Formats: sequence, structure tokens, C-alpha cells
Amino acid sequence: MLAVTILGNNSAVPAFDRHPTSQVITLDSTVFLIDCGEGTQIQMINYKIRRSKISHIFISHLHGDHYFGLVGLINTFGLLGHQQEMHVYGPAPLQQIIQLQLNVANTKLCYPIHFHTITGEGVLVENDKYQVKTFRTNHRIECYGFVVKEKRKPRKLVAERLKQNSIPYHFYENIRNGEDFETDKGELIKNEWLTDPAPKGKVYAFCADTKYDENIIEHIRDADLIYHETTYLDHLRDRAEERFHSTTKQAATIALKANVKKLLIGHFSSRYNTLEEFESEACEVFPNTELAIEGVTYRV
Amino acid sequence: MLAVTILGNNSAVPAFDRHPTSQVITLDSTVFLIDCGEGTQIQMINYKIRRSKISHIFISHLHGDHYFGLVGLINTFGLLGHQQEMHVYGPAPLQQIIQLQLNVANTKLCYPIHFHTITGEGVLVENDKYQVKTFRTNHRIECYGFVVKEKRKPRKLVAERLKQNSIPYHFYENIRNGEDFETDKGELIKNEWLTDPAPKGKVYAFCADTKYDENIIEHIRDADLIYHETTYLDHLRDRAEERFHSTTKQAATIALKANVKKLLIGHFSSRYNTLEEFESEACEVFPNTELAIEGVTYRV
Repeated sequence: MLAVTILGNNSAVPAFDRHPTSQVITLDSTVFLIDCGEGTQIQMINYKIRRSKISHIFISHLHGDHYFGLVGLINTFGLLGHQQEMHVYGPAPLQQIIQLQLNVANTKLCYPIHFHTITGEGVLVENDKYQVKTFRTNHRIECYGFVVKEKRKPRKLVAERLKQNSIPYHFYENIRNGEDFETDKGELIKNEWLTDPAPKGKVYAFCADTKYDENIIEHIRDADLIYHETTYLDHLRDRAEERFHSTTKQAATIALKANVKKLLIGHFSSRYNTLEEFESEACEVFPNTELAIEGVTYRV
Repeated sequence: MLAVTILGNNSAVPAFDRHPTSQVITLDSTVFLIDCGEGTQIQMINYKIRRSKISHIFISHLHGDHYFGLVGLINTFGLLGHQQEMHVYGPAPLQQIIQLQLNVANTKLCYPIHFHTITGEGVLVENDKYQVKTFRTNHRIECYGFVVKEKRKPRKLVAERLKQNSIPYHFYENIRNGEDFETDKGELIKNEWLTDPAPKGKVYAFCADTKYDENIIEHIRDADLIYHETTYLDHLRDRAEERFHSTTKQAATIALKANVKKLLIGHFSSRYNTLEEFESEACEVFPNTELAIEGVTYRV
């Protein structure tokens, strides 16, 4: 199960009880954090996030509304006696900024923390359950999006066929791992007959802060869910261009052209008190659009 | 009018809807900020603080729960088009930490900001309305308390006596400035007869994070209101000693020995869900003790 929980859906200046960017990615028992604006650790308490489970933190770029909460979170993990390894990915000089603040306070963290500097596109993390890739977005400063891909799970044993063919219990694990079975009489029973394919892994793409740029489409094509910023409504497309941000219709156009299944929009400017128009404008272009609302979990 | 509004009353780990340290000092139309833990700018919105009026920010020490919200606040002032000069006082290397984060984001602030490194005891700011002094407290790292002193205002003209003695209107300003009046007949009318003394200026002392240390008493003696941390209840005095923090009874003992009028306690450890015991324990030693509650303004 892949899901995204929104902790902050606003742009830089907090307003109307909306907070700067942060999202929790849950992938079965694995928990990632994407971006960590100021107050993220407090939002985690508000929304009962299992913060001790977080193993990887991905920071898109070094505008404060995407990482000013990181040093506080790292510090709090230390004070709470966190044990698990923590991996932090972000552009340079994120590590320097965090380390300086820890050093000044004589803070010795009680858990291992590893900083990984993102320097360009590619795979950041991969194992047999998931893969996280990064890609460049088009923002005022160096900025990265992230694609979280659930791997296809092992094929599922079909109980009645295993029984029908008298497969011994001790061989079940081999079947699960893709082997065929040979009977005493030398008859080959194909794995495809004894198992059903698992459903395809889901894909979530976080497109960070970006102006309208079709170069990102190749990285997010056919995704099940993408998050694309919509700092402004359509009437401010000139300002969006100038500030390297996107409008509702631009985000929806990217979703449409990338053939994704669903679009989540956020990073709303604090000039807007209400959000209904964001949804209606985006839906004109891409109907399966939803607002990213704080505290809500979206299953991919 | 001198007053203190509490924005955060908790120690390092936010919990039970309590936030890290921050206090707003209002002195007539002047607004200061003392400490700026993570989320301070959001607390300012919650409690409708006139944040654009803040001219001076004093940071006691560089443990994150006292300053991690500063860079976000400085940044937000920039995004909101703040114009007024801002003065920030704190231990080195506060300026380096903030500047590094602004530089990385290519942030050019639209208002003048001046960093002042606190290196030891003395007067930080002074004019004809107030004085702010700093003193050392006894904490794990370099840490400073602050004394905000309202200056005595000019004496008040007593209308009936000015009339009785036929003082000409054009001489009122001279009287206000302390001059005596000489009549045509050479009779001297003393200023003390024509005016009443203004009430004595109030004094507020913020004692920052500190273990029990009687050396701070000389700096806060006879203050109208002091804030002294009580991270722990009395049962954890060994832990308080070890962590360079104070207990309820220790804070109350300082208040008693310093002969202050009132004690405000805060910086509560997140191990305590409720606060009643903090008040009752401190009151046993110093009856005029009150809990520092977020969102509440305490007139000095």
C-alpha cells in the first residue's frame, strides 16, 4: 500500500492555518518524508504520524518553506532517543547548514544520520520493495522532484492448484520465488499455472516547486498519482512565470500530457483565503484533480 | 505599559499543544521578541501579535528550541515587504547560521537587519523610554538573560496648581522638563509643587535557561516580574542539576531571594501532561507565582 499524507499545503508564508510544504509517504511499513517546512514536527503530532518510523527524508530544494523544520525534527529525534538509521537527501549545502546548528549546541545525536547530496537525476534509493528516483524541476534555485515506485510484489500462490498438483509444502517457497515444479514422473508444472501475478506496483511523483516545464513529463509519465504545485490561480500566470511557480491550469496540463491517473495540487499562495477555485480551475483541464488538504491521506 | 505575551512555554520537544520558547514584550508602542523557537511565526498568527511592529529580537542561547524559528520569521518579514529596521541580538555564530540559509536561497531581504553579537553582561539597547540589559545564566552552553526596564516618565503637570499660580501656557513645556518658575515678583515656585512624580518604570527579567544559580539574583533584584524556567518538578532536582535546568522550588527560591514582586514559570518538560503541580510546588516557596500560559499577556 502506497499513500501520501499532507502535512503542509501552503507556499512560503504560513496563513489561514495552512503550513509550509511537507508530505509523509507510507509504503507498507516504510515511512519517508518529502520536504520539511517549519512546524513539520508539530504537524506530525497533530496528525498522529508514526514519526519514529521515518527512515528517509528527501528535501527538494533549499527555500526555507521546504526545509526550515528539518533541524528541529532531527534534534527532536535525538531528544526522544531515536535509534534507527536516518538518511537525508537534499541539495548541497544542506548537511553544512544542519551540522553547523548541531555543533553550536554541542548536540551529539544518539542515532546514525547519513546525508546524501543530490547532484542530478537518477536513483536515490532502491531495494526489492521500492525505488526512489529524482529529477530536476525548473525553479529559481536548484530543485528536485521525486518519484516513488512500489515494486511489483512476488506472484501469489494459488492454493487449489498447488493441492491439485500435489506440490509438497516444503516446495512452496521455491514456487513463490518463481520456480517451476517437476513431478516424480518428470512432468513440468509451470510457475505461471501455480501462481497469479501480483498487482503492478503503484507510482507517486512529487513535482516540487516548478514553473510550467514539459521536460518533467518524461519522469512522471503514466504515474498513478502526481503532486504538482499550483501557487497561483490562472489569472496570475505572468507572476507564476516570473516567480518560477505554476498555476492551476499549468499543473493540470502537465498531468494531462503526462497521462497520469490523478493530480493532487498544493503550495497555495497565502494571498488566497479559500481553495475551491484552485480545484475548479484545474478540473477544467484535468478532471481527476484533488486539493492537497493538510491531515488527509491519499492512497495512490 | 510593559507587558509580556507568552508564545511558547515548553522545553525542547513540543508536546501537549505546548511550543518551544518565545515571548513578546510590549512597551507602549514598542515590540520586542525574546527567543524564537520553531513555529513562533505561526503562534504570532494564532495570537494576533502585531509582528510588523517588532524592532528588536533577543536570542538567549543557541539551543534549537530558542531560535529555530528565527530564520523563518526573518524570511517571512522579507516576503511580506517589511520595511522597518530589525536588530537581532544573540550569541555568535547566530548571524552566520542565519546568513548561510539566506544566501543559499538567494534571499535579498528588503529591510535592513543588524546582527549584534552578545559577548558578556551589559546594556544592549537604551533610549529615553527603556533599557535592555543582559546577564549570564548558568546553562550547558553560553546563555543570557535579559532585563527590560521601563524608564521613569517625565513628571506630570498638575492643572489646578499651574492655574492657581498663573503659570503662562508657553512655560508648561519648561515645567514638564523639570524647571522651576519665577514670578514677576521674583518668587520661586518649585517644580515639585507644580508637578506630580510619574510612576516608577516597571522592570521585567527573563532568566532564560539556567540551573539554580544565586549569581543571577543581583541582576533581577526587586524586579516587578521575572520569568524563570522550571523544566522539572521538585522530584527531579538531580536531573535538573545534571541538565543545567531548574525545578519549581529552585525558581521560586530565586524569586524569593531576589525580592521580586511576581514570578512567571515556564519551559515545562514534555514529560508532564498537566501543569497544576508546577504552580502549587512553586507557590509553596513563593506564593505570587503564575504559570506562563501560551497566548496569555501578563502586565508587568
